[in-house]
Amino acid sequence: MIIYTASDFEQFEKHYRIHFFNSLTGYKSVHLVGTQNAEGTTNLAIFSSIFHMGSKPPYFGMLVRPTGETPRHTLANLLETGYYTLNHIHPHTYKQAHQTSAKYPKDVSEFDAVGLTPWYSEKVKAPYVFESNIKIGLKLVETHPMSFNGTILVVGNVVEVIFKQPYALPDGMINLEQAQTITSTGLDVYAQAKTIERLERAKPN
Amino acid sequence: MIIYTASDFEQFEKHYRIHFFNSLTGYKSVHLVGTQNAEGTTNLAIFSSIFHMGSKPPYFGMLVRPTGETPRHTLANLLETGYYTLNHIHPHTYKQAHQTSAKYPKDVSEFDAVGLTPWYSEKVKAPYVFESNIKIGLKLVETHPMSFNGTILVVGNVVEVIFKQPYALPDGMINLEQAQTITSTGLDVYAQAKTIERLERAKPN
Repeated sequence: MIIYTASDFEQFEKHYRIHFFNSLTGYKSVHLVGTQNAEGTTNLAIFSSIFHMGSKPPYFGMLVRPTGETPRHTLANLLETGYYTLNHIHPHTYKQAHQTSAKYPKDVSEFDAVGLTPWYSEKVKAPYVFESNIKIGLKLVETHPMSFNGTILVVGNVVEVIFKQPYALPDGMINLEQAQTITSTGLDVYAQAKTIERLERAKPN
Repeated sequence: MIIYTASDFEQFEKHYRIHFFNSLTGYKSVHLVGTQNAEGTTNLAIFSSIFHMGSKPPYFGMLVRPTGETPRHTLANLLETGYYTLNHIHPHTYKQAHQTSAKYPKDVSEFDAVGLTPWYSEKVKAPYVFESNIKIGLKLVETHPMSFNGTILVVGNVVEVIFKQPYALPDGMINLEQAQTITSTGLDVYAQAKTIERLERAKPN
């Protein structure tokens, strides 16, 4: 048994600490977030902090960290237009997805830089990733700044969902294996998940 | 291509809608959350809304939904004691973990009901799951109620991490495959992830 406590954490080297705590929560949802500014300049950034906050109406949360160039472009854009997209990542796109985390100058679109294709629906003022099998369009609802470290919780209302194929099972569950959605952990590990089992709703005894 | 919009969402049958939006974000971190009340009655509940909010100091977030019996016991307990634990789930414990979502009476501990073992460290006033390979002890920092649907964001400071084996790689990254940590999607799908690739830090060009 190995026990780490706060005094150990303080002695962790910076990158050790970042890898350790970013992988400690386990496997994460990972998405490409598409935005554009008022002039239509597009931005694409990888985020592993997207989570369900409600189904009626459908609300998803996303954390934007105070540091890092790309997330700040994402935040500025979505505050400007009120829209953003989430795009699932697959075995054929994870390398390009990871490459969006490089610090490109503000006038360079990550779509061009990494070789992914912006695609637009009629409803959402933000670019989707054409190559993604599952695309989600969101309208900004509100932001909650966290006083303790400047992290911002962005809450969005899902206004559109676009599937390349009919991935929803008869009861609404989305078949992520069929959609080839990948998961991530830490800052740089990409993984493919395989269902062990789908269980029935739990009842006492 | 299949496009769903808000008018479709409104027509989704209740359970269809819940399955659909709970799986739409992709694979999720899934943990057993251990708490106890001031009298020492323990509670154990499965949560798939745990996320990293910072590494220095280490802060994790957790969403507690306004509905559901078990999450409310978790919230009441952690507000009472100021502590809670997160415990990774594995192929040998996911069935018991899922069973904690059954609506047991308040005086029944899910540890007893599902057959998992409470275990205590010296620092944290909440029960760990002995069977978990990775255990995380947190001290409550703050709660943020969401006005739009009553969801509560609970923020905790990681004060202790306990590994059964040395799972941390030399650079701090935790080897989740070695720890046999599983992931989930929707409300009832449990999956095992296999690393595709670990990528280098991205730089322009």
